Amino acid sequence: MIQKPSLPQGTRDFGPEVVRKRQYILQTIRGVFERYGFQPLETPAMENLDTLMGKYGEEGDKLIFKILNNGLDNPVKEASLRDAFDKVLQGKNTKDLTERALRYDLTIPFARYVAMNHGQLAFPFKRYQMQPVWRADRPQKGRYREFYQCDADVVGSRSLLNEVDLCYIYHTVFLQLGLEGYELRINSRKLLTALAEICGGAGKMIDITIAIDKLDKIGLDKVKEELAGRGLDDAQIATIERYLNISGSNDEKLAAIKELFGNNETAKKGIEELEYVTNMVIPAPSQREGETVSAHGSRLTAHESPNLVLDFTLARGLNYYTGIIFEVKAPATVKIGSIGGGGRYDDLTGLFGVPDMPGVGISFGVDRIYDVLEELNLFPPTVTQATAALFFNLGEAESRAAYGLLQGLRSAGISGELYHEATKMDKQFKYAEKKGIPYIVIIGSRELEQQTAMVKELATGQQEPVPFGELAARFAGENVR
Amino acid sequence: MIQKPSLPQGTRDFGPEVVRKRQYILQTIRGVFERYGFQPLETPAMENLDTLMGKYGEEGDKLIFKILNNGLDNPVKEASLRDAFDKVLQGKNTKDLTERALRYDLTIPFARYVAMNHGQLAFPFKRYQMQPVWRADRPQKGRYREFYQCDADVVGSRSLLNEVDLCYIYHTVFLQLGLEGYELRINSRKLLTALAEICGGAGKMIDITIAIDKLDKIGLDKVKEELAGRGLDDAQIATIERYLNISGSNDEKLAAIKELFGNNETAKKGIEELEYVTNMVIPAPSQREGETVSAHGSRLTAHESPNLVLDFTLARGLNYYTGIIFEVKAPATVKIGSIGGGGRYDDLTGLFGVPDMPGVGISFGVDRIYDVLEELNLFPPTVTQATAALFFNLGEAESRAAYGLLQGLRSAGISGELYHEATKMDKQFKYAEKKGIPYIVIIGSRELEQQTAMVKELATGQQEPVPFGELAARFAGENVR
Repeated sequence: MIQKPSLPQGTRDFGPEVVRKRQYILQTIRGVFERYGFQPLETPAMENLDTLMGKYGEEGDKLIFKILNNGLDNPVKEASLRDAFDKVLQGKNTKDLTERALRYDLTIPFARYVAMNHGQLAFPFKRYQMQPVWRADRPQKGRYREFYQCDADVVGSRSLLNEVDLCYIYHTVFLQLGLEGYELRINSRKLLTALAEICGGAGKMIDITIAIDKLDKIGLDKVKEELAGRGLDDAQIATIERYLNISGSNDEKLAAIKELFGNNETAKKGIEELEYVTNMVIPAPSQREGETVSAHGSRLTAHESPNLVLDFTLARGLNYYTGIIFEVKAPATVKIGSIGGGGRYDDLTGLFGVPDMPGVGISFGVDRIYDVLEELNLFPPTVTQATAALFFNLGEAESRAAYGLLQGLRSAGISGELYHEATKMDKQFKYAEKKGIPYIVIIGSRELEQQTAMVKELATGQQEPVPFGELAARFAGENVR
Repeated sequence: MIQKPSLPQGTRDFGPEVVRKRQYILQTIRGVFERYGFQPLETPAMENLDTLMGKYGEEGDKLIFKILNNGLDNPVKEASLRDAFDKVLQGKNTKDLTERALRYDLTIPFARYVAMNHGQLAFPFKRYQMQPVWRADRPQKGRYREFYQCDADVVGSRSLLNEVDLCYIYHTVFLQLGLEGYELRINSRKLLTALAEICGGAGKMIDITIAIDKLDKIGLDKVKEELAGRGLDDAQIATIERYLNISGSNDEKLAAIKELFGNNETAKKGIEELEYVTNMVIPAPSQREGETVSAHGSRLTAHESPNLVLDFTLARGLNYYTGIIFEVKAPATVKIGSIGGGGRYDDLTGLFGVPDMPGVGISFGVDRIYDVLEELNLFPPTVTQATAALFFNLGEAESRAAYGLLQGLRSAGISGELYHEATKMDKQFKYAEKKGIPYIVIIGSRELEQQTAMVKELATGQQEPVPFGELAARFAGENVR
């Protein structure tokens, strides 16, 4: 039976150009993670359903893709299928129907890995992970059912040096990608805790966080309405408004926040964290010295320091963060939300029986970064170039010579192809054009006799004869892989 | 509730060292694919069940992991669940239970992609794809439920130049991985067809292929028994034995096979294919010339030509191949089966409504190649090295200076870390050892005063003072990422 094939809703094929652009982003991030001593981890797509369920809230549980136990849909096993269905319907045990599920994020598999292997790991354990995850969300523009996450975490350390490293990782990646205009906003969850303490007690933390988290979307007036609706009085709301209105340079903001919180101990700790991190990312004299010596040729020289913006309105939703939190905004010219975020948490693996595993992590929003680079036209043209040179196929003897020369190019790391059959030159031209190949190499009977190829650049139409013996050198540096 | 976490049967976590080694293999292969003009493709993990079912035989269908339709296991939807079960049990429609499934191989998703996009692609379309696939096989040693496939195919061309390219791709990859002793066996399916023609007619093709395919495992006598059991007479079996016993150099084998088949037209075509490919991979004079000029520094110079072995006993099971077939054997010192294989087929996309799409493809057995490299100790030591230098943390001022210098190294592409807290040197040493970091950089109060770091190589115990300004240069070339 002939089928008209299609893709499942919310999934995508990535063709050659898109894969190359995505690889460019992922390899840039990977290179920076590695320079900072982070190590790669890969976990399987399938996890036991037990590992995932109950970790993402009720809504999350519903969005986990579950895998049908094998054999159940097999007609010959109808009896066991009926049996399984009966058990499921009686609410006894869905395990007879599904025991495995697709990864919903990278954090829970990472926690499971650390819990299973903590005896063997060197702590602090710094890992990065770049893999797809699956969510049964309703598909819509920019939201997919399969998408990549790209995370780096340090666990087993409370040191703020980790937060400093993570700031520099963001900085280096975005600079390498050409996104100098990014903003790295940071805050400490401890300030939100402190705000709750001085506005109705710690019990109000969730109410305040939920309301503040909406500030970007609904504006200050609606946030105040919501706070009132959640039972905060006018004085408390006024304090929160004062908190949210703090502005100026980082130093001015720090001065204002100190005045607002006075002697509140929680706030003091949060402010200390923020001061430590902001101070460390402003290069000290010795650091400048080190960079002068070493950064020849590096793009870091011009923009030494992460573009850190204190943002006390940053809340990062209702998750497990307890200390410094991060969020990265794309350059202001692009209308797109956050392209990265993260923060510090107290307990990664408690749910899996391994207590006392604090950590801090960040993630990169790869799909959004892709869209930003596309919109700002920041992908280097070489990224999508496939083949550097197409050798025309102009007959048996000619193609044999061409193939030998082509092998010379390939041995030197230059990508090239010989057209697969001796056909009209027009057709061979079209192939080069359609594939975006910049150079063609023509070896006809005359060229064969003179041991000289004709090299033509498609963009300019210019052509020049190049002796066979100099061909590889002619292409040296051209798209070497 | 605290859980003791575990992994689903047949799945694996890949820790840092394993990911790095796997990346080394995959990046080596990727680089060669790219040099030969192949382009990357990535398809989603989930396909519509319709796309996959019926493509892998009855046994294959059973091994496809199906995904439960979303919402069905949700208790509040019990009515719809009961409804779905009823329909399934009545044999009406399993779509109410499952509509999507996990990719079982890379070929069918590739065929689906070509069928959906053939209007936009430049043909011949050369794609490579390296992604995991999932099979509900019974887990056993060396067989996993999630594993990578790594395929390259050219579709839309009948030219044997593609086969020649694929031979060189195998050759270049295995040479780069240090597996000079590999053997690339080739045959043409047309010879097996011809053998059937002269031994009982084309109808015997399947019987003969099934029997010959077992030769490695059960030996010639058992193959003859099986052929007799399948109804071949003594004269026919004698012919097949003569065919299987052909030995000698490639040239000797070609002479013998010509004599055996005489004027059989199918055999003539198969022999022509084999002669074309074997002739092209023996460097012609112009090719040698090209290589002399271009291959400076390349490993190809020493071993110019694929180690091609004609093997008329090669059958490649009961699949869709119709022309040249390949199989790669690991170096003889390793007791492991094939580490790659492939062949030419007539029709990739007919099942999806796009006729006349011939092609040829190969695959690399990544898990087995990994095992071979491990057994022969062929992974370069730098592959698994994480961090080049660990800066000790010896106090507030010291660590601040160290961090600045570390940033200098990182800007120069050298991977490094500052230990996360000022603790006993012994503990910092242990971290470096456990993580396999080759150098430590000590900056205490004396070093800070003298603006000179102490650099110690852990393997030798040797240490030397290096002025701050020369640190990055000292590590230049060390594990640059």
